Amino acid sequence: MDYNQFFDGALSDLREQGNYRHFADLERRTGDFPHATHRDAAGKERPVTIWCSNDYLGMGQHPKVLTAMHDALDRSGAGAGGTRNISGTTHDHVLLEGELADLHGKEAALLFTSGYVSNWAALGTLAAKIPNCVILSDALNHASMIEGMRHSRAQRVIWKHNDLNDLRAHLETLPKDQPKIIAFESVYSMDGDIAPIAEICDLAEEFGALTYLDEVHAVGMYGPRGGGVAERDGVMDRVDIIQGTLGKAFGVVGGYITGSAQMVDFVRSFASGFIFTTALPPAVAAGAAASIRHLKDSSAERMLQRARVAELRAQLDQIGIPHIPNPSHIIPVMVGDPVKCKFISDKLLNEHGVYIQPINYPTVPKGTERLRITPSPVHSAEDMERLVTALEDLWHQCELARQPMAAQ
Amino acid sequence: MDYNQFFDGALSDLREQGNYRHFADLERRTGDFPHATHRDAAGKERPVTIWCSNDYLGMGQHPKVLTAMHDALDRSGAGAGGTRNISGTTHDHVLLEGELADLHGKEAALLFTSGYVSNWAALGTLAAKIPNCVILSDALNHASMIEGMRHSRAQRVIWKHNDLNDLRAHLETLPKDQPKIIAFESVYSMDGDIAPIAEICDLAEEFGALTYLDEVHAVGMYGPRGGGVAERDGVMDRVDIIQGTLGKAFGVVGGYITGSAQMVDFVRSFASGFIFTTALPPAVAAGAAASIRHLKDSSAERMLQRARVAELRAQLDQIGIPHIPNPSHIIPVMVGDPVKCKFISDKLLNEHGVYIQPINYPTVPKGTERLRITPSPVHSAEDMERLVTALEDLWHQCELARQPMAAQ
Ligand SMILES: Cc1ncc(COP(=O)(O)O)c(C=O)c1O
Ligand SMILES: Cc1ncc(COP(=O)(O)O)c(C=O)c1O
Repeated sequence: MDYNQFFDGALSDLREQGNYRHFADLERRTGDFPHATHRDAAGKERPVTIWCSNDYLGMGQHPKVLTAMHDALDRSGAGAGGTRNISGTTHDHVLLEGELADLHGKEAALLFTSGYVSNWAALGTLAAKIPNCVILSDALNHASMIEGMRHSRAQRVIWKHNDLNDLRAHLETLPKDQPKIIAFESVYSMDGDIAPIAEICDLAEEFGALTYLDEVHAVGMYGPRGGGVAERDGVMDRVDIIQGTLGKAFGVVGGYITGSAQMVDFVRSFASGFIFTTALPPAVAAGAAASIRHLKDSSAERMLQRARVAELRAQLDQIGIPHIPNPSHIIPVMVGDPVKCKFISDKLLNEHGVYIQPINYPTVPKGTERLRITPSPVHSAEDMERLVTALEDLWHQCELARQPMAAQ
Repeated sequence: MDYNQFFDGALSDLREQGNYRHFADLERRTGDFPHATHRDAAGKERPVTIWCSNDYLGMGQHPKVLTAMHDALDRSGAGAGGTRNISGTTHDHVLLEGELADLHGKEAALLFTSGYVSNWAALGTLAAKIPNCVILSDALNHASMIEGMRHSRAQRVIWKHNDLNDLRAHLETLPKDQPKIIAFESVYSMDGDIAPIAEICDLAEEFGALTYLDEVHAVGMYGPRGGGVAERDGVMDRVDIIQGTLGKAFGVVGGYITGSAQMVDFVRSFASGFIFTTALPPAVAAGAAASIRHLKDSSAERMLQRARVAELRAQLDQIGIPHIPNPSHIIPVMVGDPVKCKFISDKLLNEHGVYIQPINYPTVPKGTERLRITPSPVHSAEDMERLVTALEDLWHQCELARQPMAAQ
């Protein structure tokens, strides 16, 4: 077999479908985010405003976070130097896990190299090791959870997205004493809708299931201390396993789970993806802990962020640009065609200095291609004006449908 | 089901078998590594010398690495703020990938959040997507490769560790035109033995297989520019996919693959574990690039490391402490019992200020429990004297067998 020819063929197919991805080469500037420098393939530099970052609150440039990271570098060096078990547990890891357990009101927390790995390893290990376990998975769960479930080879039942009746119907067909995990997210990343956590917990209690909740897009963002939607809704104690990331609102990198001491110790002891990998650098742990601590005390960033989101939604409505109405901070502007979506994104970048990556398959289903816009407290009124003007111009150029109201 | 009771039971079993892991809480001190502060469960602090780190060359505290990380923090902030596709590709990522491709003499490189994820995602994707692919896997391959192969659901053939005859025998039974990947490591982490890379490439060429080589424990350590054992042996161009880590000899964190432009682009485009996760922080990328650049030019660290390894081996031989003879930098001192192994490790820590984590199941097979010692250029003669005296004392106390020579 000519392997490179096979790879080439698969890549050509992607290109024809409009799904080949070009990564934008960006240089963020501390203190000046969301403004950055974009370098094109020829090395030409251009100033841009980033409108699609998951550094939702700008914590990636917060002085407390940077100071904590500088200090930890000076104190403990670059890397952890080993897996958590073999010389790689530093005091910064221990402190961060304490901070995370406290954030979610749980007995314990466990750190992973990413949110992806925490979902994959925790869900994969729990479902594989609990005898005869069945997972009830929301239809729109993230790739990392899907891979974890697949990995476990446990029985899997998919329930309709955020549909309590469908979840109940599935629970009713399963044997009463079969161990069960209900896996779902709070804020769904691409549509920005939010799960009915309390009602899912009701069902879990009724049917004796564990609840596994991905709060990746909600930690730092919701709840009085940034504990996520479960905190906002007052149901953190009813969720068995809360999973999150340190790479989005907290502005650094890494992932974690929190829950009972036994559950966390179990995953710590049996999850391959936790055990056999170098621990995160102490400076990353220190930076994340500083970010969490700050957002536990300060709601200013969350308030300002919410105001920006409302403002942008209102401005989009005024010019009739369709966006999915949802109760979260994510504004999905729907295009519905991969080629047009990429065209608009390219024009925004090259002619308007606005960077919004097109979201195409496989991140979203084909036919629902979109621009996913994430306003932050550090976007100014002028930034927003430039964005809205550019979108209006391009909507006109592409002859895309407008809507009198935001509803779709 | 009472889930916590189930978790408790599984943890009790581990404890009874002597396989329950306690993580040592360490605080490394920049400039003073391998010396660190250990905190016990009661919070009591004690100075220790770390003898089991994978920061093999002390690059985790190298001024060039730290300066590069400080600079990147000041310049670009803490996190990347997104997946590689959605605002998370910074110029530091692009530069690091260039550095890695150059290190291995390949067309392209792709960065992952860890070496674990790079093995899992790359091998998993290649084996799943190449139609009818079979993987021929060395029997001692790392957990991350095993999970990747498992994930792919491709046909898998295990060949006897480092056994060319067995590999050939398997290749001969497979259909000539079936796509094949031979997956193996250069330096095996726990035994420290080294694969016959050239001969495996001979077989791969004869039978039309791709070669996938994990150089995690060799990058930075072998070859005139630290390109690994394949560089040392002059066969880098014959290996199709070289995988490595930024978390061991390079002293930071992260993982990667290198190879043909098409192969790398293919994995970039299809690997879930690459696509759906936040990119590494720019500061991590910058620190790793500085470390690689330094070790491309300087062999001083490698030379000194080699001298320390030879010195320790000679001293262990003098007092008859059995260690696996191997051609690498890893010194496995065999204990062969999980309880004794943990006992020795505890005594070393509590009475001698020497930290060497016991290596028990599942990291090594039951009955081969060991102390895995990794001397570095920053260990002094006094450090070594303290280690050897302590081991001699404990060997006596535990009535462990001595050997007249190092041979086992
Ligand atoms: C819902 C969800 N879960 C998990 C992840 C993975 O988290 P991380 O980026 O920390 O790997 C993501 C996105 O990256 C996500 O959108
Ligand atoms: C052979 C081998 N491959 C891969 C890995 C994973 O690399 P990383 O620590 O960067 O995740 C390790 C150890 O951690 C290893 O020993």
